[in-house]
Amino acid sequence: MNALTAEVIGTALLILFGNGVVANVVLARTKGNDSGWIVISAGWGVAVFIGAFCAADFSGAHLNPAVTVAMAVAGKLAIGEAVGYIIAQFLGAILGAALVYCFYHEHFNVTEDADAKLACFCTSPAIRNLPQAFFCEVVGTFALILPIFLMAVPSLIHGDAPAETDPRLGLGALGLLPVGMLVFGIGLSLGGTTGYAINPARDLGPRLVHALLPIQGKRDSDWNYSWVPVVGPLVGGALAAAVYLAIA
Amino acid sequence: MNALTAEVIGTALLILFGNGVVANVVLARTKGNDSGWIVISAGWGVAVFIGAFCAADFSGAHLNPAVTVAMAVAGKLAIGEAVGYIIAQFLGAILGAALVYCFYHEHFNVTEDADAKLACFCTSPAIRNLPQAFFCEVVGTFALILPIFLMAVPSLIHGDAPAETDPRLGLGALGLLPVGMLVFGIGLSLGGTTGYAINPARDLGPRLVHALLPIQGKRDSDWNYSWVPVVGPLVGGALAAAVYLAIA
Amino acid sequence: MNALTAEVIGTALLILFGNGVVANVVLARTKGNDSGWIVISAGWGVAVFIGAFCAADFSGAHLNPAVTVAMAVAGKLAIGEAVGYIIAQFLGAILGAALVYCFYHEHFNVTEDADAKLACFCTSPAIRNLPQAFFCEVVGTFALILPIFLMAVPSLIHGDAPAETDPRLGLGALGLLPVGMLVFGIGLSLGGTTGYAINPARDLGPRLVHALLPIQGKRDSDWNYSWVPVVGPLVGGALAAAVYLAIA
Amino acid sequence: MNALTAEVIGTALLILFGNGVVANVVLARTKGNDSGWIVISAGWGVAVFIGAFCAADFSGAHLNPAVTVAMAVAGKLAIGEAVGYIIAQFLGAILGAALVYCFYHEHFNVTEDADAKLACFCTSPAIRNLPQAFFCEVVGTFALILPIFLMAVPSLIHGDAPAETDPRLGLGALGLLPVGMLVFGIGLSLGGTTGYAINPARDLGPRLVHALLPIQGKRDSDWNYSWVPVVGPLVGGALAAAVYLAIA
Repeated sequence: MNALTAEVIGTALLILFGNGVVANVVLARTKGNDSGWIVISAGWGVAVFIGAFCAADFSGAHLNPAVTVAMAVAGKLAIGEAVGYIIAQFLGAILGAALVYCFYHEHFNVTEDADAKLACFCTSPAIRNLPQAFFCEVVGTFALILPIFLMAVPSLIHGDAPAETDPRLGLGALGLLPVGMLVFGIGLSLGGTTGYAINPARDLGPRLVHALLPIQGKRDSDWNYSWVPVVGPLVGGALAAAVYLAIA
Repeated sequence: MNALTAEVIGTALLILFGNGVVANVVLARTKGNDSGWIVISAGWGVAVFIGAFCAADFSGAHLNPAVTVAMAVAGKLAIGEAVGYIIAQFLGAILGAALVYCFYHEHFNVTEDADAKLACFCTSPAIRNLPQAFFCEVVGTFALILPIFLMAVPSLIHGDAPAETDPRLGLGALGLLPVGMLVFGIGLSLGGTTGYAINPARDLGPRLVHALLPIQGKRDSDWNYSWVPVVGPLVGGALAAAVYLAIA
Repeated sequence: MNALTAEVIGTALLILFGNGVVANVVLARTKGNDSGWIVISAGWGVAVFIGAFCAADFSGAHLNPAVTVAMAVAGKLAIGEAVGYIIAQFLGAILGAALVYCFYHEHFNVTEDADAKLACFCTSPAIRNLPQAFFCEVVGTFALILPIFLMAVPSLIHGDAPAETDPRLGLGALGLLPVGMLVFGIGLSLGGTTGYAINPARDLGPRLVHALLPIQGKRDSDWNYSWVPVVGPLVGGALAAAVYLAIA
Repeated sequence: MNALTAEVIGTALLILFGNGVVANVVLARTKGNDSGWIVISAGWGVAVFIGAFCAADFSGAHLNPAVTVAMAVAGKLAIGEAVGYIIAQFLGAILGAALVYCFYHEHFNVTEDADAKLACFCTSPAIRNLPQAFFCEVVGTFALILPIFLMAVPSLIHGDAPAETDPRLGLGALGLLPVGMLVFGIGLSLGGTTGYAINPARDLGPRLVHALLPIQGKRDSDWNYSWVPVVGPLVGGALAAAVYLAIA
């Protein structure tokens, strides 16, 4: 499997599991209806873990333009490669979001709350203050990417350690667990304000799907807010790369 | 221990723990009564982890006809072996379901809700639309088996890496944790519609036990629905194997 | 540290964390008051994990007479050693239970429910049927000890693999995580009827402490029930060892 | 990165994630509002895991003056180094607490409960009895540090095993998971009385930030209690080191 296919599949799985858990919690008459923040944040943590262990061996499992940009800023990825990665991530996110809609189709139909339906695609702030929301997305993504750079022992994600000398290769899928735990932690601790997009593809791709699909009783796709979870994560990721270069 | 004994024991443990957690949550007067979706999905995730690490060294820990069929489609298992595995899985599932009934016997007696009693054996859709439920079981099982095939570093489950060269062998039971996490994630994210059978033996075996046992105040065993969690997972597993062969 | 000291300290930590989480959930005015079954079962899972990784290198971390008896039945421990282990486990359990009482002292004083106070020491069945409770303790302990014997790759717990050839030694504390997950799973799935003692020292030691300490407004220590969580686990453990010997 | 920078960054991440989860649960109109003790204790467990795997390779990841003092008592760290570590930990804690305030700024403004706002910075006892709270902080910290010393296989945290002979080095970030689980367990089991500061920098640093920042409608910073979560953890850590030296 080539790197771009891996990014498409990995991101599609990330969004299928990630937006899937939101749908399970917020849509009407699901088995996980109203099961709380522990379910949401655990679901997204596992979503990243699954997407990551599927793509790791093939692409380094970025699954997130903010990660790809941070890698490029840190000199670990050529610009040309980065562009391909980002396109693949958006394709994967769109595919995943469409799948979640098909999967929870009956429950979209019986749900009256149009905000809940939008939440199954993209994020929105708990209190509407865009500069503050932007700040939160910067910090949340910074808190994702600096730890990825600092993880004890060079990670598979860095892509700069030849396989035969990487002492973590033997861990396989398990070696990606810390990344899943990290995202679990971001949800628990920093998800309370904006719902932690921390990934432009995760937010903009599904938002596009929300706009295009003929969802019963849907509201507008809140394009007004849409730049925040795109620009915020890119800035946060670049900032994390810069700090890493300064201290490493 | 030979492979078939391992499949019987592993699947029996899977169902004892998996249907056990459902019983603890939905039956009356249990200590875990009404403790929510996080308990259900964590319980099934751990159930798979336990069943898997018990059987892994002996049979590769399929514990699921959908996994066995996917392995056969991918050319990793002979047809003859596959038949034996599937029979063993059904025997294990029947054994596990009978044990759960004996274990929670008092609580079955004090529970009035006949649907809750059935839920301790097999799945049912939150909204009754059989083609849609079939689609969900296909997607859920696809999302189980494609990641198993794609897991970073060939897994013990594949059975195609000689023990002495498999760098994950040293992980022992821990190496199966990603499989448990995967099932935890499927529960959290894709369990909201049909209750994620994603395993024909897990659903049909216990349904048979429900039909045969003299359970106080039980309802019919919903045979009308019973083909969905059998055919859906088989199709989803075969599809995952086909996609894997196409992209690997 | 010698093996018996390790068993005392490991079991004391097990009970401090295990009974501690019960106190946090059931006593009045604690920060974790009424936080549910996920907290109880996660707390006991982590309790076993902590006790186990502290004692593993020194004693093999039995921490449970049912484990010790099962090891003796399976021929992995001499009778003389087993007696010492069991005495050490009871001493540890008593120490841990006394510590929990001192730790939550203020909350014992403000709690009115005498059953809740007893629950901070030992188990009681949700529905009072002693033969059935006995059966549940046998099954719960069987489901603890058979998986420990079957765990992929010989475990440190077995004590029969020389350190230098055990491929799991390099995992350190992490190698005990599957044991913690197993107990987490038993709580989630099989804890609903009797509260899963699955360990004679865990139940009888603290029950003795409940009887002896001058706890405000305490009830009797339910000695009538006390044999169930002692004899049940011993039978379940011995049964698991016998099954293991028959199939291994 | 030098050791002191690592302690600053690791502790800042610890407090960003740790106090962040408290803010998410106790402040008004957050997405995780009132999501319970499982969220709080999981959030702090992951916070320690993240802080630890970021700093481990550079400083041994103490992130806690009680750990540093215990290491000095056990002869594993020179006094001069210890002083630098502790200053770095306080700087990190102050930085992390200020970040949490900026992050949840809007939610601080809409929250009426002044006690809840203080809880986003530092701990307070559920029942006000200072000697008893002191005892709880001693025991909680003892239960953190003795297991760290006893962890199966010398840990990276000890700093006394040369990298090339440490069999756990190959685990990378994953090798710190047991420390995160340990703190998760302390929260679940021993967090019910004082809210488990178990770290002088974690409590006093943010309390100072609470005193200095112009938080809308804030209460006093409860300086009366402030010595308990400073002295208690130092005593508990030293005690654990002494017990370790006596039994090791």
